[in-house]
Parts: sequence; structure tokens; C-alpha cells
Amino acid sequence: MDGKNNPSLKLLKDIKIVLVGTTHPGNIGASARAMKNMGIYNLALVKPKDFPNDQAIYRSKAAKDIVQNAKVYKSVKEAVEDCELVLGTSARDRTIPWPTLKPKEAAQEVSENLGIEKIAIVFGREDRGLTNEELGLCNLHINIPSDPEYSSLNLSQAVQIIAYEIRMALLEDENRADDWDVERATNQQTELLIEHMDELMKEVDFYDVNNPRKLLVRVRRFFKRSRIDVMETNIFRGLFSTIQKKLK
Amino acid sequence: MDGKNNPSLKLLKDIKIVLVGTTHPGNIGASARAMKNMGIYNLALVKPKDFPNDQAIYRSKAAKDIVQNAKVYKSVKEAVEDCELVLGTSARDRTIPWPTLKPKEAAQEVSENLGIEKIAIVFGREDRGLTNEELGLCNLHINIPSDPEYSSLNLSQAVQIIAYEIRMALLEDENRADDWDVERATNQQTELLIEHMDELMKEVDFYDVNNPRKLLVRVRRFFKRSRIDVMETNIFRGLFSTIQKKLK
Repeated sequence: MDGKNNPSLKLLKDIKIVLVGTTHPGNIGASARAMKNMGIYNLALVKPKDFPNDQAIYRSKAAKDIVQNAKVYKSVKEAVEDCELVLGTSARDRTIPWPTLKPKEAAQEVSENLGIEKIAIVFGREDRGLTNEELGLCNLHINIPSDPEYSSLNLSQAVQIIAYEIRMALLEDENRADDWDVERATNQQTELLIEHMDELMKEVDFYDVNNPRKLLVRVRRFFKRSRIDVMETNIFRGLFSTIQKKLK
Repeated sequence: MDGKNNPSLKLLKDIKIVLVGTTHPGNIGASARAMKNMGIYNLALVKPKDFPNDQAIYRSKAAKDIVQNAKVYKSVKEAVEDCELVLGTSARDRTIPWPTLKPKEAAQEVSENLGIEKIAIVFGREDRGLTNEELGLCNLHINIPSDPEYSSLNLSQAVQIIAYEIRMALLEDENRADDWDVERATNQQTELLIEHMDELMKEVDFYDVNNPRKLLVRVRRFFKRSRIDVMETNIFRGLFSTIQKKLK
């Protein structure tokens, strides 16, 4: 379920996350942690305001290695020079529309090209995002839908969402198996349980047999809907039998 | 594209985000911001270590109102008492598996029931998550897939991912309708049903009280998973009461 066996997840490591003009070093650390949680290790910093810095290390928790290995560049152009597919995050509507993807669509694009192209994802300044010039260096733009009442996400949260969606896109290709611990009851077992409950209900005069109304339908719907498992049917039937014995 | 015209987005406000035993007040603030960015306003805190606190306000940025309006509770049980659908985040594999959803699947479930049921999403302690007992109060569990190399997300990042997925689910799926005929049981009603069944099981000596093994966990899991409705709880409790009278 955590995709340990999916070899393409290893390719995540090389995706380059580019943080541009970051003001708060804590955001660099928090972004590094968000990356590592999703299996991404390649961090590039363009003109960070205050770096290296202890706060970046502290906030990265167990992603210290990513912060320490981060490369610092003078411009976005320099940072993405070796990349074939560059995606830039954009909050604003531009005067000239650019192909803008939602995070999931962008992640799909990344997933399809992973291992084939070198990929970078560029995140702008905390307060002003990326300039039009910087966005012009990107192949595609990503917009994270947010509430218009308060649309500005913290930088590391934006990194988290994109990194998460990329990991999800890779995991979705896999077949997931249901890992319930007990076998589900067969149809027959469920029917026998429903009959047993009805028998008990009659024994204690729980309903008027001439006018059951919807009671039995409701009991039936309940057990069917629950996808009850074998052990659970045994618990109910065991309890019903015990009660029946006590009543005699 | 930001869904300004989607009326169901307004329902997001009432989703209750429950943070349990939060150690760092900064995480409360960052979580409040993550909520507000996605349009969620209802914050509940269970036994926060250090609250109210300036750091919570500072990190919330423009989501100060959410922090200031947060309600503090003594237990998860108390915090979710009025809710019909309770989802709990879970990192670990449990000895008894519970229906566990990925964030997107969970968001789908939330989206389908929004406006019909009162919904809570519960997040555990930074270091230890939720206890088994707390998870037992939830209808469904959510697991955020992360890299096994470093799987522990910052609390506010987990809140961000779930809140983001819920917003996405609403944006994607405009025609949601639930056609359930009866109201779902509240968390309190389900707890009372479980207690009642346990009482009856003890009365008929159905299990060794000194060695209940996993019986009660299984009963609990069954009723929670079923998303039992009010009429169904009445059927079971009515039957249990009738049996108890007959036994006397």
C-alpha cells in the first residue's frame, strides 16, 4: 500500500524542487520535509534571503540532508538549465493565458515523463510568487485551487500538495488489494444470520408477525450494506444462540 | 475555476477539524491557515498542550479568526459527539484492520455527505497520532501515503492535504446527492448502542469479562463501519431491551 515495490517511485528522488527568493528559512526546512515525506530529494534555491540558517535545519526535522545538499543558484534560468520539463506554480491570472493545470493534472504530466525527461517544479516568493519573466521559463503552469476568501498558501504547504499529488499519480498505476483481515461472509451466511435474528425477534415478541412493516427489510439492508465478515456473523449468531438458551 | 459559483463549497465551513493533544502551538496556527485556504472554518482542539498561545496566532496569518474561535474539549469523544461521520487519520497498521481510505477516497466520502451529515476529521498528536481507543470512535480511517523512508508528515501538512482533497472533491463533483431515507446515527447514539450490546452480552455470559480478547473491538468496528442509521440503532436497542425484560 505504501508502494514499496513500485520501482518508478525511486525516480521521484531526482525531481528538482526550485524555491525562488524564499524570505523565511523556516519555509525552506518545512519544504524539505514535505519533499522527503513524498520521496523527493533534489532541492534548488534561487537567491534565498537567509541561507544557510539554523531555522531551515530545525524545521526540516529528519530532512536535514536535503537542506544540506541544496544547491544555490543566481537565477531561475540557471537553476532549470538542465531540465526538459519545467512547471511553475502561479497564483494569479496572467494577462496572457498560459496552459494552466491543476495539481493533479500537473502530477499526471510529471508521472508520464518521469525517467524520460529531467523535471523541475518552481515555487515563487512567499509574498509575490514568480515574475512573469520567470513563469515564461516554464513549460506549464500549475494553479492550486484555494478559497478566494484567503487564497495564499504557505510555501511549504504548496510544495506538500504538489509533491503529494506526484506521489499519488505514481501510486495510482498500481493495483491496490483489499486487505481485510477476515473473509467477507458469503451471501448464504448473511441470509442465515438474518433468519436467526428474525427467529430471536419472534421468540421475544419484538414485532407483530401479522404486521412486520418494514422491520425485516431494514434489518436486511443493514447487514447487507455492512459487508459483514465471517467473524462478525459468528459473534452475532453466537450471541443470539446464547440468549435463546438463557430464555429456555 | 476557483469554484466561486459552486454553492456546495460554502458547506465546507462547517466541517470540524479536530486536533488532538497538539504539542506545538505553531502547528495549530499553521493548520488553521491550511483550513482557511481551502474554505474550512470549524476548528476543535482536544487537550492542546499550550493554548491559547501567540505562536498559534502568528502562524495562522490571516486565519486568526479560526484560531480565536477554536473550541477546546477534554476528549475526542466529547469533540465528535454531535457528528454523524467521523474520519480519523492513521499512520500505523492496526492489528485489526479498519476500513482505511486514501485522502482522495475519504474526500469523496466527505463530499457525498456534506450538508446531510455533520462531519469531523480527527488528527492525532505530532509524535504518536491517535490512540486505538480514539480511532475506535471513527467511522473510517484515512492514511496519507508517504515515503516509508520518512513517513511522518508535519501536522499542518496533513491537514493541508486532507483539506485540499476535500475542496477538490467538491469542485470535481457538482452533482452529489445522497438518498438515504433515515438520518445516520450520531457518534453518541452509536456509542450507546455498543454499550447496550455489551451490557446484554455480559448479562448472558457471552464472554469472559476477564478475557474479552478482541470481541469488543470487533463489535465496535462493525457498527462504526456500517454507518448505522437512527432507525437501525432503534431496532437493535429495542430488541436488546425486549430481551433484557424477558430474561428477568
